[in-house]
Amino acid sequence: MTIASAPGKVILFGEHAVVSGVAALGAAIDLRVVAKVEDAPGKLEIEVPNLNLNVKGFALDALKKEILSTKICEDAFQATKYVSTVLQKFDVRNVKVVVESEIPPSSGLGSSASVVVASLASINFHLGLGLSIDELAKEAYKIEKEVQQGLGSPTDTALATYGGYQMVREKAESIELPELKLIVGYTGVPHNTRLEVEKVQNFRESCPQIVDPIFQAMGEISRSSLNCIREQKLNKLGELMNANHGLLEALGVGTKELSELVYASRGAGNARGAKLTGAGGGGCMVAIPSPEYDGVIKAMTSIVQAGGKAFLVTTGCEGVKIEH
Amino acid sequence: MTIASAPGKVILFGEHAVVSGVAALGAAIDLRVVAKVEDAPGKLEIEVPNLNLNVKGFALDALKKEILSTKICEDAFQATKYVSTVLQKFDVRNVKVVVESEIPPSSGLGSSASVVVASLASINFHLGLGLSIDELAKEAYKIEKEVQQGLGSPTDTALATYGGYQMVREKAESIELPELKLIVGYTGVPHNTRLEVEKVQNFRESCPQIVDPIFQAMGEISRSSLNCIREQKLNKLGELMNANHGLLEALGVGTKELSELVYASRGAGNARGAKLTGAGGGGCMVAIPSPEYDGVIKAMTSIVQAGGKAFLVTTGCEGVKIEH
Repeated sequence: MTIASAPGKVILFGEHAVVSGVAALGAAIDLRVVAKVEDAPGKLEIEVPNLNLNVKGFALDALKKEILSTKICEDAFQATKYVSTVLQKFDVRNVKVVVESEIPPSSGLGSSASVVVASLASINFHLGLGLSIDELAKEAYKIEKEVQQGLGSPTDTALATYGGYQMVREKAESIELPELKLIVGYTGVPHNTRLEVEKVQNFRESCPQIVDPIFQAMGEISRSSLNCIREQKLNKLGELMNANHGLLEALGVGTKELSELVYASRGAGNARGAKLTGAGGGGCMVAIPSPEYDGVIKAMTSIVQAGGKAFLVTTGCEGVKIEH
Repeated sequence: MTIASAPGKVILFGEHAVVSGVAALGAAIDLRVVAKVEDAPGKLEIEVPNLNLNVKGFALDALKKEILSTKICEDAFQATKYVSTVLQKFDVRNVKVVVESEIPPSSGLGSSASVVVASLASINFHLGLGLSIDELAKEAYKIEKEVQQGLGSPTDTALATYGGYQMVREKAESIELPELKLIVGYTGVPHNTRLEVEKVQNFRESCPQIVDPIFQAMGEISRSSLNCIREQKLNKLGELMNANHGLLEALGVGTKELSELVYASRGAGNARGAKLTGAGGGGCMVAIPSPEYDGVIKAMTSIVQAGGKAFLVTTGCEGVKIEH
């Protein structure tokens, strides 16, 4: 039996602008997908028992049982599709793959990339396929792109594979930066990345004189953020997050729910800054909490009280690894 | 007895950017200040009986009587100061001036400029001072600036005097545009214009590479809006408002309350677009409602349900006038 795990990701700065060649900064986070492969002679089974789907706690579970269980099925089905594409691609037989995830699906935290990377790494090790880490990243990206019918971004699979931070312009490149404590707030609203990306690109086509300077400001924020993370200037980093959030709102990818979590964390949560992360239109936001224990609790509580689910994560964590 | 009235104003696009020479568009709105002057031999009295201060309706009135009445005193005192400066400036005696206002004070709707313009126009007519309309605008600006200790903007007094629309770059210039139906939503949170302007200017000084492109995008939005208003392309105008709101959030002048009213009007209110107006940090937002009767009711209801006070206004209305 082999167990491999891969981290999720957040985009810290520059989402959307990156589609037009502006620098974005992504970070691996220590919410992980675990893929277990064991021999199963004559069989080929995939099991997805846990995808961290109790996104709103017991209340929603009890009140909207039907919706929640539909959701489980759909997301579990989606995860199964990624794993089965991995198995097909490498003509794998006689195994059982079990995937569990700490990353809420369809939330913009890269769960599908992590599912692909973790299951591919586990199979690679278990069956001795001999893929190097770079080959693993490349194959995982191909598979994610195939299942998502051409969408997918090399950033997600790169972060799931290498961990740490990735600076993305036309391609993703690893960049050395220290860890950050971050609160991720999930609105519970799944989003459609393709839709949000198209919306922004359409806006850009119809109004380049408005959107291009917005992208320019975003690129500058991404660049400025590197030094803040390096020197742990958290107040300044928070200000950059606030500015970047406004620019994403200007592009039309903000939502009421995201805004509520963002303002809750900045206000009652005493965070140094907050922004939506990823494509927007739902999904997650991130906040830099005041660093002491109280600050972290306050930021998390504020997000939960505003109707979200809160995770304390460390950015820049380890990439894919064989756990067993 | 002479009665004169002057309109309030909203900034439709380009606030804050205008401080750095980017074009902004302001409009007079048909919430008015009425100033009545009558002879009062041997006396010099100012009365401010009504400043539209029941900003949250009866609930707040009953619950927070103390706070509300302090507020009344402070704002009434402020209005009195404007009027008494007018009287002093022109060495007026033997009159009683009564000022009433439909414009909530300290809300960014230009109530102080309207108080100055209406009372000056009333005195000008009543005592035959012989000020031309241009002189009236100029004197009113001087008086507002003096009372506000150097702040003040010629836009507010120009809109209160001439009505219509003003395009502001370095100076304000009248521009011909058709009327618009607009919903103004007041958060009930008074704001400090000076503070917000300083905040943005400090941000610009420390991060010009981020703030200058934001201003550039704002200028482009202001320019694009003219054609939309001319041709009554309300959907497009709404999109420009949404983009401008995000840029103001990026500059750091958004608040939880403003964001709540903005999202309520865009969502349940079915508005075509919404943004904060003026300096931010409190004050008002504006929304373009769907034009039919239902649309207006929906937009206003959504704002009230989100905790604001809603006004239906017409932009581009008449400037100062002698009513009696």
